[in-house]
Amino acid sequence: MKGAVLYGPRDVRFEDRPEPTVAEPTDAVIRIAATCICGSDLWPYRGAQPIKGPAPMGHEYCGIVEDVGSAVKSVKRGQFVIGSFFASDNTCPHCSHGYQTSCQQKEPVVGAQAPLLRVPLADGTLVATTDRPSDDVIPSLLALSDVMGTGWFAADAACIRPGSTVVVVGDGAVGLLGVLSAKQMGAERIIAMSRHEARQKLAREFGATDIVTERGEEGAARIMELTNGVGADSVLECVGTQESMMQAIGATRPGGYMSYVGVPHGVELDGARLFFTHVRMHGGPAPVRRYLPTLIDLVLRGEISPGKVFDLTLPLDQVAERYRAMDERRAIKTLLMP
Amino acid sequence: MKGAVLYGPRDVRFEDRPEPTVAEPTDAVIRIAATCICGSDLWPYRGAQPIKGPAPMGHEYCGIVEDVGSAVKSVKRGQFVIGSFFASDNTCPHCSHGYQTSCQQKEPVVGAQAPLLRVPLADGTLVATTDRPSDDVIPSLLALSDVMGTGWFAADAACIRPGSTVVVVGDGAVGLLGVLSAKQMGAERIIAMSRHEARQKLAREFGATDIVTERGEEGAARIMELTNGVGADSVLECVGTQESMMQAIGATRPGGYMSYVGVPHGVELDGARLFFTHVRMHGGPAPVRRYLPTLIDLVLRGEISPGKVFDLTLPLDQVAERYRAMDERRAIKTLLMP
Repeated sequence: MKGAVLYGPRDVRFEDRPEPTVAEPTDAVIRIAATCICGSDLWPYRGAQPIKGPAPMGHEYCGIVEDVGSAVKSVKRGQFVIGSFFASDNTCPHCSHGYQTSCQQKEPVVGAQAPLLRVPLADGTLVATTDRPSDDVIPSLLALSDVMGTGWFAADAACIRPGSTVVVVGDGAVGLLGVLSAKQMGAERIIAMSRHEARQKLAREFGATDIVTERGEEGAARIMELTNGVGADSVLECVGTQESMMQAIGATRPGGYMSYVGVPHGVELDGARLFFTHVRMHGGPAPVRRYLPTLIDLVLRGEISPGKVFDLTLPLDQVAERYRAMDERRAIKTLLMP
Repeated sequence: MKGAVLYGPRDVRFEDRPEPTVAEPTDAVIRIAATCICGSDLWPYRGAQPIKGPAPMGHEYCGIVEDVGSAVKSVKRGQFVIGSFFASDNTCPHCSHGYQTSCQQKEPVVGAQAPLLRVPLADGTLVATTDRPSDDVIPSLLALSDVMGTGWFAADAACIRPGSTVVVVGDGAVGLLGVLSAKQMGAERIIAMSRHEARQKLAREFGATDIVTERGEEGAARIMELTNGVGADSVLECVGTQESMMQAIGATRPGGYMSYVGVPHGVELDGARLFFTHVRMHGGPAPVRRYLPTLIDLVLRGEISPGKVFDLTLPLDQVAERYRAMDERRAIKTLLMP
C-alpha cells in the first residue's frame, strides 16, 4: 500500500509502505474510510519538532475493522469505528479519571494517512457505531478522532456553563470546533479571534457572536473592552505559541478558566505574573476517548456537524500537496479518501 | 504610637509613627487586638522584594473599630472585626465572583504591626463578629485575616472532595493550615511535606496522615511511591519557589488539581512540560474576604483552631526580634499584642 511518510522539513512523500498487521493480541487493523492532516502534523513538517528517521504520518482516522488480535473483545471485524490519536487501555487509574491521553500504557497511533492502520489497545481506543454510517456523516465522525474531541476538551476544561462569556484564541479547525463546543455547552457570548474571512464565516456559523481581529496585547485589550473591563469567564487557547498563551491569559477574568490544547512550542510562563491574574489553567493532549460516545451520538442525531471544517475532499494520493496547502494556510482542513 | 517600619534588608525598626485617622469616607480605623508577621513579610525583609523608602509593616489584624468614615455602613464603633490583607469593595464583578483580592478597587492594607490601623473600603473588607470574642479565640480569629484564609483557599482551589488524596508542599503556617483545611473538606489521606519536627507534629495534629521529608524531584518520586504511581488528586503549593512548584506539579495526577498560594519568586514554567502533565492549576493571592463568614463561624463554634500555628505570644515591642526568629526559622509564627 501507499502512505504518507515524512523524511524531513517540508519533505512528505506518498510512497510504498508495508501493510500493517496485527502485531499484538490487543491490536486492531482498520481500513481507513477517511483521514486528514492535523495542525500538529505541521510542527514536524516545518522542522519545529525533530523526527528520528522517516516517519509514517497521520493520527486522525475512522473506518472498518479489518482484523483484530485474539485479546480484543469490544470491536469486531466489519464494524465501523472511530478512535483517538493516542491508544489507551481505558482501565488504568488515569483513564478512569478521564485522562486517556495520560494512560499508563498510552501509545501514539501513527500512519493513518494510508489505506490501512494498526491501532494498538483496540478495546480501550476504538468506539464502534451501531450501524454503518452513511457517507455524508463520515467527515463529522472523522473530526471526532482529534479536532472535534480537542475543541470539546478545550470547552470542557474551560468549564463553560450556560450563560458563559467565552473567548476562542485560534481559528484553525480546533479553534472553530471550540466555538461549536462552547455553543453546545450553552455559552451566551462567544468571541472568536480570527483574521481570515472564511474562518470568521465558519466561526459565525458554529455560534460565534463576535469576531476580534486584533492579536497579542491588543487582542487582550479588545476583549477587555468587549467585556466592560472584566474579561471572559472561559478562554480557549487553541494555538500553542507564547503570544497566544499570553493573549488567552490576559483575556480571562480573575477566577475564570483558561484551557490550552495547542501543543505549546517555546512557551515560558512567569509564575508571579500568572499568580496575580487569578486565572485557572487546564490543558494538555485532549482525552478524546472520553468524549467519543457522547460526540458520536451528537453527530448521528444531527445535532453537530464538525465535518464542516473540511473545506475540500481529495484522494489520499494528493496528501503531499495538502501539507503544502495547510502550511501556507490555503486550506482549513482537507478530507483525504484512500 | 509605635509601629514596625522596614528600612531595608533585615532592618526593621519599632519606632514612632503618626496615628492613622479616617482619610476617606469609606475608611475605618481599628484598635489592634493582635497581629503577627507573615511569611510574605520575609521577602522584603530579606531584600528579595525591593521597597521604596521606609515601609510600615503588617497586614494581619483583628480588633475593635475605633472610628469609621461617613460612608461606612456595615461596621460600627466598638465592634470586633477581622479583615483581609487586601481591601476590597466586595461589589465589583471580580468580588462578586469571589476574587476580592482582584477587586477593581483593591488596595493593600499596610501598617498592622502597630496599635492602630487604617483599613480602606471598610464595608467590603471587614467582617464583624456578633459578640466580643473571648481572649482564647483571638489567635484563631487573627489567623483568618491571612494564613488560615490562604490555607483554605489553597484547599478550595485544589478542589478537595471527601475521600481525596492530598499533598501539602510547605510546612509554614499556610501549609499547616492547608492541612487543617484539607481535613475539614473531607480529605482521606493528607501527605505533609516537612523536615521540621515541631511542624510535623502540628501537621499530624491538624490531620496529616503521612509525612514526607524528601524534597524536589525526590519528594515528587516519594509521593508517586505513596500513591501507587498515580499521584495525588490535589496538591497545595504553599511556598512559591521553582523547586516547590515543580515538586507540586510532579506530585499531582493527570487531571488532578494543583493550587499555589505562595507568591512565586523567580518561578518560570515550561509550557510544554505543563501541557503533558494534564495538571489543573489555580492560585493567586487568597480572596480571604470570601471565606471570612464561614471561617469565623467555624472558629466560634470550636470546629477549627487555626490559632495553634502561633507557638509564642509576645508584646508588639519585640517585633524586630521576631522578624529575626522567623527569618532563621526558630519560630513558626509569633502572636504580637500591642
